[in-house]
Amino acid sequence: MNDGEKSMPVDMKSLSADNKASILIEALPYIKRWSQKVVVIKYGGNAMAGSDEANSLVSFAKDIVILNAVGMKPVVVHGGGPQIGELMEKLGKIPEFIDGHRVTDRETLDIARMVLVGKVNRDIVSAINLHGPLAVGLSGEDGGLIKAEAKNARLGYVGQVVSVDPTLVEGLLHQGLIPVIATIGSSEGGQAYNINADAVAASLAGALNAEKLVYLTDVSGVRRDVDDPESLISLLSATEAKELIESKVISGGMVPKVESCIEAVNKGVGRAHILDGRVQHALLVEIFTDGGVGTMVTP
Amino acid sequence: MNDGEKSMPVDMKSLSADNKASILIEALPYIKRWSQKVVVIKYGGNAMAGSDEANSLVSFAKDIVILNAVGMKPVVVHGGGPQIGELMEKLGKIPEFIDGHRVTDRETLDIARMVLVGKVNRDIVSAINLHGPLAVGLSGEDGGLIKAEAKNARLGYVGQVVSVDPTLVEGLLHQGLIPVIATIGSSEGGQAYNINADAVAASLAGALNAEKLVYLTDVSGVRRDVDDPESLISLLSATEAKELIESKVISGGMVPKVESCIEAVNKGVGRAHILDGRVQHALLVEIFTDGGVGTMVTP
Amino acid sequence: MNDGEKSMPVDMKSLSADNKASILIEALPYIKRWSQKVVVIKYGGNAMAGSDEANSLVSFAKDIVILNAVGMKPVVVHGGGPQIGELMEKLGKIPEFIDGHRVTDRETLDIARMVLVGKVNRDIVSAINLHGPLAVGLSGEDGGLIKAEAKNARLGYVGQVVSVDPTLVEGLLHQGLIPVIATIGSSEGGQAYNINADAVAASLAGALNAEKLVYLTDVSGVRRDVDDPESLISLLSATEAKELIESKVISGGMVPKVESCIEAVNKGVGRAHILDGRVQHALLVEIFTDGGVGTMVTP
Amino acid sequence: MNDGEKSMPVDMKSLSADNKASILIEALPYIKRWSQKVVVIKYGGNAMAGSDEANSLVSFAKDIVILNAVGMKPVVVHGGGPQIGELMEKLGKIPEFIDGHRVTDRETLDIARMVLVGKVNRDIVSAINLHGPLAVGLSGEDGGLIKAEAKNARLGYVGQVVSVDPTLVEGLLHQGLIPVIATIGSSEGGQAYNINADAVAASLAGALNAEKLVYLTDVSGVRRDVDDPESLISLLSATEAKELIESKVISGGMVPKVESCIEAVNKGVGRAHILDGRVQHALLVEIFTDGGVGTMVTP
Amino acid sequence: MNDGEKSMPVDMKSLSADNKASILIEALPYIKRWSQKVVVIKYGGNAMAGSDEANSLVSFAKDIVILNAVGMKPVVVHGGGPQIGELMEKLGKIPEFIDGHRVTDRETLDIARMVLVGKVNRDIVSAINLHGPLAVGLSGEDGGLIKAEAKNARLGYVGQVVSVDPTLVEGLLHQGLIPVIATIGSSEGGQAYNINADAVAASLAGALNAEKLVYLTDVSGVRRDVDDPESLISLLSATEAKELIESKVISGGMVPKVESCIEAVNKGVGRAHILDGRVQHALLVEIFTDGGVGTMVTP
Amino acid sequence: MNDGEKSMPVDMKSLSADNKASILIEALPYIKRWSQKVVVIKYGGNAMAGSDEANSLVSFAKDIVILNAVGMKPVVVHGGGPQIGELMEKLGKIPEFIDGHRVTDRETLDIARMVLVGKVNRDIVSAINLHGPLAVGLSGEDGGLIKAEAKNARLGYVGQVVSVDPTLVEGLLHQGLIPVIATIGSSEGGQAYNINADAVAASLAGALNAEKLVYLTDVSGVRRDVDDPESLISLLSATEAKELIESKVISGGMVPKVESCIEAVNKGVGRAHILDGRVQHALLVEIFTDGGVGTMVTP
Repeated sequence: MNDGEKSMPVDMKSLSADNKASILIEALPYIKRWSQKVVVIKYGGNAMAGSDEANSLVSFAKDIVILNAVGMKPVVVHGGGPQIGELMEKLGKIPEFIDGHRVTDRETLDIARMVLVGKVNRDIVSAINLHGPLAVGLSGEDGGLIKAEAKNARLGYVGQVVSVDPTLVEGLLHQGLIPVIATIGSSEGGQAYNINADAVAASLAGALNAEKLVYLTDVSGVRRDVDDPESLISLLSATEAKELIESKVISGGMVPKVESCIEAVNKGVGRAHILDGRVQHALLVEIFTDGGVGTMVTP
Repeated sequence: MNDGEKSMPVDMKSLSADNKASILIEALPYIKRWSQKVVVIKYGGNAMAGSDEANSLVSFAKDIVILNAVGMKPVVVHGGGPQIGELMEKLGKIPEFIDGHRVTDRETLDIARMVLVGKVNRDIVSAINLHGPLAVGLSGEDGGLIKAEAKNARLGYVGQVVSVDPTLVEGLLHQGLIPVIATIGSSEGGQAYNINADAVAASLAGALNAEKLVYLTDVSGVRRDVDDPESLISLLSATEAKELIESKVISGGMVPKVESCIEAVNKGVGRAHILDGRVQHALLVEIFTDGGVGTMVTP
Repeated sequence: MNDGEKSMPVDMKSLSADNKASILIEALPYIKRWSQKVVVIKYGGNAMAGSDEANSLVSFAKDIVILNAVGMKPVVVHGGGPQIGELMEKLGKIPEFIDGHRVTDRETLDIARMVLVGKVNRDIVSAINLHGPLAVGLSGEDGGLIKAEAKNARLGYVGQVVSVDPTLVEGLLHQGLIPVIATIGSSEGGQAYNINADAVAASLAGALNAEKLVYLTDVSGVRRDVDDPESLISLLSATEAKELIESKVISGGMVPKVESCIEAVNKGVGRAHILDGRVQHALLVEIFTDGGVGTMVTP
Repeated sequence: MNDGEKSMPVDMKSLSADNKASILIEALPYIKRWSQKVVVIKYGGNAMAGSDEANSLVSFAKDIVILNAVGMKPVVVHGGGPQIGELMEKLGKIPEFIDGHRVTDRETLDIARMVLVGKVNRDIVSAINLHGPLAVGLSGEDGGLIKAEAKNARLGYVGQVVSVDPTLVEGLLHQGLIPVIATIGSSEGGQAYNINADAVAASLAGALNAEKLVYLTDVSGVRRDVDDPESLISLLSATEAKELIESKVISGGMVPKVESCIEAVNKGVGRAHILDGRVQHALLVEIFTDGGVGTMVTP
Repeated sequence: MNDGEKSMPVDMKSLSADNKASILIEALPYIKRWSQKVVVIKYGGNAMAGSDEANSLVSFAKDIVILNAVGMKPVVVHGGGPQIGELMEKLGKIPEFIDGHRVTDRETLDIARMVLVGKVNRDIVSAINLHGPLAVGLSGEDGGLIKAEAKNARLGYVGQVVSVDPTLVEGLLHQGLIPVIATIGSSEGGQAYNINADAVAASLAGALNAEKLVYLTDVSGVRRDVDDPESLISLLSATEAKELIESKVISGGMVPKVESCIEAVNKGVGRAHILDGRVQHALLVEIFTDGGVGTMVTP
Repeated sequence: MNDGEKSMPVDMKSLSADNKASILIEALPYIKRWSQKVVVIKYGGNAMAGSDEANSLVSFAKDIVILNAVGMKPVVVHGGGPQIGELMEKLGKIPEFIDGHRVTDRETLDIARMVLVGKVNRDIVSAINLHGPLAVGLSGEDGGLIKAEAKNARLGYVGQVVSVDPTLVEGLLHQGLIPVIATIGSSEGGQAYNINADAVAASLAGALNAEKLVYLTDVSGVRRDVDDPESLISLLSATEAKELIESKVISGGMVPKVESCIEAVNKGVGRAHILDGRVQHALLVEIFTDGGVGTMVTP
């Protein structure tokens, strides 16, 4: 609904009860279509680290709860890069990066795990649970959820996904709960690894046969010209996406996200989306209205 | 939300996607509160017999489907007085009434049953099933649902409820289906009776431990002064309602409806409502917004 | 047991308790063999429209209840041509037929639906439910049971089966209930159609993986010479049946019935039968004794 | 149906299929009434030890299978006094009795157990299983079914029931199987005891909340005058039965059977019966016809 | 753990609680590995017929109970040759053997059945049930467990397995019970047969998809030189075993046992073992320690 | 088994397989007794903070896994005082205590939560999951597990338990998983609180109807004279325990632990234990041997 997207927001107070009922009626086909479907949402550390973090998290939590309330099965996957950096700084530890990956020694791993599992994860769980006892925080180490291995010896305890066992997550979904997952995995030998959350989200969406995978980022989507908002690409097939990466139209930090989208749809996920998490309720707009936002990747 | 009710409807096209998301967010507490709850809706023959019957039924069906889609368990009970009168007229049969009850000989009973079960019930089922295979039409004769007996020998086959066995209806609700019930009951000996739908709705709501019973009528609710729309009573306890009947403030056709409300809340139903079914989406407004409409009777 | 069939009925009063026990013992292998098996019974409008309709329906209902009581899963499908004609006549509407199909305008459809769903279906349900809360009346419109489309534009709202969704019927069977089905179907767009009951019975038997499909008619079975009762054919393979139709040995109204039998066994139904519903308890005799009656079609 | 009982059996061959159907129809109310109900049948060693043992067992097995086939849950309890005596004799062991109880030393216990569990139980199981894999033989030692203790030190390993744990039997009934129980019990310390089968049947019927307990004996029932067949008492309340024992109208071997009946109805069993097992199909006649036979004890 | 096996048993009293805990810790990987796995144990008549039969049975029962307690699903199959011979002798009946099979006339069959089902089976059940209501004795005749036919006309009622229906056994295992099975089978026509217990154990292990089949015998395992204990073969593939039989290294009574092992692993059983049942707790040592004993046959 | 406790540990290598089997046999009655029973184990921060922390945690994890493997349902509750102190120190934050409680400002709360949920909890989960995908880490904030409120305004975010909702934990136990719980709770308004782990363990044990509550501490149990190891009290009733607190025999840090024990048994927990977690496998010794260690409090 391109019109809708461009129209000025109306003052909510001016809406009649009848207007409101009409909007529920408009949402009806979407509610029915997505009923009982699993949707994996990657919620980026950047999305919540902005100036109005609190508001943004509050708004995100409401969106997740409403998905759950109308019968969908949302699963939240999160990272927390900025928050890890913050604690490292406080502890006087200097971050080192190779090819955009944080070199992770044992102490950094401990810090990352504490921040991801003990802070970011907790904050998301708490924000959701204000609406009822719904969210359950997990780490990939729980119940054998994410098996991992070292990505590259030089990076230390930076991991990559070896396999995902969705049993625990499925059990929680079956009870109507909302899993919130910190992306620490562990090796067969019990070694923990910090894993890129984008990659975990794609693997998990595949393992759960999710209908949708949504990346909530701090950009508006994939653009042909990264500086031109008008060049936003609304729809990409996996094949087209691959070509755009090869031809370097897609570049920089967008590459791994789009690659994760491609991986997910190749594993059977219905659709993968890159949305701007800074826009209030972008998730609801995407799922329940005709107004598609961001970029959608299809098989 | 009295303000809301009085505010002018806004042109839907002028609403942004963001507005729409906000309204879902507003509906969230109601969706959660009524999740998995049974609500019995009496849909009156008059409500659908008006000039724009088709539109009204289409709109009603959407409301019912949305209740189902967001996790409630709606049960529809309907009458069909005007439609029965219509077929009797076509067949050259002259209706006779005693105290507002249609005297029902064997032929009239056959006509009533054909119209209620074979026409009105079917039309409601069809209207709902446009949205998916959801509605199942039932008569009180099915699976021993409504046991009935003669109300008064002079009235012939006009019945009153002896007992309700909700097993069949509960089974359908458990499968996520929407029962639509024509109010024919049968005696132990297998004799069919035509029963007042208001009374059946109250008994059924009690037997199902419904959270809500809603009468969709062609009036705006209970008024202190029947001619003064401003005298609408929004809230009545069962005790107050009884007093208003005794003091004849409530009179005429409103008496049996209010009595059914009292009976229902006495049997454990959470709340009973009298709404104006001619107002589009009155049901949704009542259930999902702060804008209460009509009259609510509480225990 | 051809002997048995020809022997004179003995006065029931002269039977000793021991005789009765012996007959139960004789029925034992059949009871075991058909336990938990679905049998679809097409009960014709003619069968119940005869002079002693009431008695015949009473007797049919008992047969159905006993099938249920000994562990079978009977499903009743019925038509109601004569009864539709009757109401049309009362309403002064003149029936028109093309190739044996009733031309069905909107008004005729309404009449057919009222009669089938609101009268014939109800009468069968009531007759069965005298023995307990067992029967549940359904129309093909309920829960998406029968999807239909127009058979032929010239015939108006005469439909043919597009698909059958047996979920609702299976749910009721699972609860030990007896579905009684009026053969109104509906299109994707919600338009109702009146469908030939023989065809619906065959499609439904296929969809339910029924073990048996039984047509209760007003003839004794398929005859080589339609005027010679001695020429009754007891057993026909689907192939033989097709040849007899092609060679016009089978002709007239028997053709669609036999074609339905062929269709059913081709869809996996174990056996299809054409029995004389005017013979008391023909159904029980067929199922529980060695005395086969009528014509049986096998794959 | 006293008339029926006195009427001469009719030659089965002379019965028409229609007659047979009528008899099923007559049995219908009984089939419905006893559906899913537990009935415990004590089958006496004498009943099967007669001249035509084989025939009698064959006939008994058919009766049990038909109860199972029409939806009842029969449980068989058996003794085997004559058969124990037989093997003792072959082994040259001289039986000794005190007050009608067989004095049971360790060797006698071994013999009793071998005969009851390894011969009588097996023969009954085999006879039933000719009709399908239905019967499962149990001893009271299996799964803690019957806890026992010594009845009287002088009697040796003659036991009395301490408690019954019906879990195992209920599990088999739930799977549609027919438990056949030899009345060996065991003490907490693992000592086996031979227990009177009449007493076990009463205790088990109580523990299973059986609807009926039936003793199949070699007498026609309780008589006021033991030598006068005309003095048979058809119906006894528990109170009356107690009085008849006290006033010695009931005496001898009939006393423990009637006492077991009284115990059973006091424990909640609906009805207890003493039938003549030598009469073919006495069990079926009792359960499925109006012709009550033998003596019925009610609470 | 060959060392362990050779080390002198330490006086249990001298073990500290800490030692004991350590041993549980050592057993942990085995407990986890075999959890919920079915193991079929053939318990030979010879094993229990020795001089200290009572002790041996007591010890065997404890082993079985501990397998059950830590989550395995043990199934016991037993023979009883010596015990059958004993009763035959007491009854003055002279055994006759052809090729090592007991010629079994009707009387011998009765004796075998009484001894196996009514004595040996009972003794095992009782010994286990001292530890709780766990064991349930079965014969192959129960619930259609073992279908059999005559092995050889000259042998009379000596049977061989035609098929095994594991439904009944699986039902008991599912309830956490321990089936103890006497190896009487029955033909379609209901004739009982006495079957070799080694063969039944192999067939049953196959039908149950058992993880392990264990023969508890009175030898230490398969030896290259039957007189040299040092020549014990610890591990044999099915192929090697076959070759050793063909080359007559394996001979005499060991042949049918090894053949049963081969048959079992060919039917999908994980491993088959021949252990010395005279060694206390050989079963536990085999399953829960590194100290393998006896001979293991693998696919 | 006091003797056992004092006897010298024997070199494990000197134990024969037979010895090992005997020890399993000795454990059998305990395995059976505690099968399917819930045991809540409080694992203290001190217990794992010692010099050989790693070893101790490895040993503790094995104990927990073995409880799970033999059919018990262990739930681990942990604190982490020393570890919190450590991170505070690194961050240059000076701890302040009032009456032994750490004054907890917002920053301290964040630190505590990161350490408990993101470090200590993770370490325990990892140690257990080396043995399979068994442990799932939870915080009291997950799924509404622990509702808390401020204990005392001066202490800041130090909480006390308001209520425990065991649903989530029960769900995990039902799937055979091992919940490991960090003792952060949250208020209705979503505020997190750090709660004393001893108190949480007692409340949780009560809410789960646990059979046992075990405190693994760094003392050997309750002593009459805190300096005299010989004065250890093995057994205390709740009443006696209360008296000893009142008479100040129990004092210092032992008071809250014993109070928690009293609270737990008053809430229906079978037994509460205070054990020395520094002793290897104290948990196994307590549960599976006759050698009781530490102090047991009974109702």
